[in-house]
Amino acid sequence: MAQKGSVEDFLAVAVDAAKKAGEIIRFGFYETKRVEHKGLVDLVTETDKNCEELIFNSLKLQYPDHKFIGEETTAAFGTTELTDEPTWIVDPLDGTTNFVHGFPFVCVSIGLTIGRIPTVGVVYNPIMDELFTAIHGKGAFLNGKPIKASSQNELVKSLLATEAGTKRDKSTLDASTNRINSLLFKVRSLRMSGSCALNLCGVACGRLDLFYEVGFGGPWDVAAGAVIVREAGGVVFDPSGKDFDISSQRIAASNPFLKDAFLEALQESE
Amino acid sequence: MAQKGSVEDFLAVAVDAAKKAGEIIRFGFYETKRVEHKGLVDLVTETDKNCEELIFNSLKLQYPDHKFIGEETTAAFGTTELTDEPTWIVDPLDGTTNFVHGFPFVCVSIGLTIGRIPTVGVVYNPIMDELFTAIHGKGAFLNGKPIKASSQNELVKSLLATEAGTKRDKSTLDASTNRINSLLFKVRSLRMSGSCALNLCGVACGRLDLFYEVGFGGPWDVAAGAVIVREAGGVVFDPSGKDFDISSQRIAASNPFLKDAFLEALQESE
Repeated sequence: MAQKGSVEDFLAVAVDAAKKAGEIIRFGFYETKRVEHKGLVDLVTETDKNCEELIFNSLKLQYPDHKFIGEETTAAFGTTELTDEPTWIVDPLDGTTNFVHGFPFVCVSIGLTIGRIPTVGVVYNPIMDELFTAIHGKGAFLNGKPIKASSQNELVKSLLATEAGTKRDKSTLDASTNRINSLLFKVRSLRMSGSCALNLCGVACGRLDLFYEVGFGGPWDVAAGAVIVREAGGVVFDPSGKDFDISSQRIAASNPFLKDAFLEALQESE
Repeated sequence: MAQKGSVEDFLAVAVDAAKKAGEIIRFGFYETKRVEHKGLVDLVTETDKNCEELIFNSLKLQYPDHKFIGEETTAAFGTTELTDEPTWIVDPLDGTTNFVHGFPFVCVSIGLTIGRIPTVGVVYNPIMDELFTAIHGKGAFLNGKPIKASSQNELVKSLLATEAGTKRDKSTLDASTNRINSLLFKVRSLRMSGSCALNLCGVACGRLDLFYEVGFGGPWDVAAGAVIVREAGGVVFDPSGKDFDISSQRIAASNPFLKDAFLEALQESE
């Protein structure tokens, strides 16, 4: 067993919480087809809330001095401002629309920052039973096996992921589809899975070569995924080329060989 | 056992062939990360070719008088023109780009038309072990359990799937992204999975509410999926509103409640 308070201990506790939350998600996922529409809204809300409570309670029990940032109940449980303190950043159910529709890209995302650096990351897809884990400096894993980002070095052979339509105002949507149009001339193909955390894990295990998203929900979407990508040998950066800022709601990720060409393509797509 | 020459017999033989081809795909899927680039091209080509041979040989052995249309080796094995004769229409590996990248949306698609009507459909995703089956007039199933299209009746709450970037000439790509832009104002969100056959199965089991694609490869992409959607209570039609034509490389699918609104949205997106 990992020493209490070590990063390995943090990871083990986070994995345990993610698996338990995953059971709640898996149950709800197969229920969605059976409940009426009003019941469905309640099912989503409850699943989300129950998962976040379960995760925060597990973590708080072990680490009462740590800080907590979560999508659902930040107001009730903790802070919203990221400090240098060890801070758990949690999305209890990433891919809510997928959950509602029974589309199998849903996950729990649990990240820990220390000194604002993403240090521990756990992303668990309970439908496909895929557990992505990483500790800063100690590699990234899928169900316990080491993973690495792709070795692709040509944009034209690269598989790109992004999301569209989370915001529906005209200027955002036009900018978003113009960017997609420009990038589609340069890459092999485009995927939209509906989960930011799983897109990052896709880059980490080489299923995807490129990912960017602008205007996602908050740090809970990327805190775990960022460390998983980096530990898999990938790079995480701001789509403008600046350093990745976990609070900025802007992210890009790729393997290191594609970074420059991807940045150039992103800039030309503005 | 089903009576020889009955539709149930056709389905059983197709399922058996799809499962065997699925083993070849599954093996290759996990190999792609281990082979060098040149080896990768060979692996894809060989997987595709071996699967089609296996499927056509299995079907020909049982039904020597039937006709065959396939993506890979039509010239070697059979006809390309669809007639009233019983005709097996096969895509041995739908989602080739996903296969190369290890993205889990790949499948075998086997359809049978009789009198040009899609009559038997089998779509098997060997990575997620999901087998979609249907016989004209006898319902649609996922791993043996009945499935049905969603009951969603509001476009704004609907999950849309399409594909982009299969062709990279400017006018096609511009038309494609303009259509996406227009539709994104009206639906909840957009998914791109990279497999036409699995998109159709997604509509059939209610994971997706809406799907359209224009300019896909050929009838092998839709022959099985069309009967699966219809038997799940969904509708398949031409994006212009005309009847679905299996040879037209144009398809739209939804549940019946959304069809009119979807058609209107598609027409406004032209």
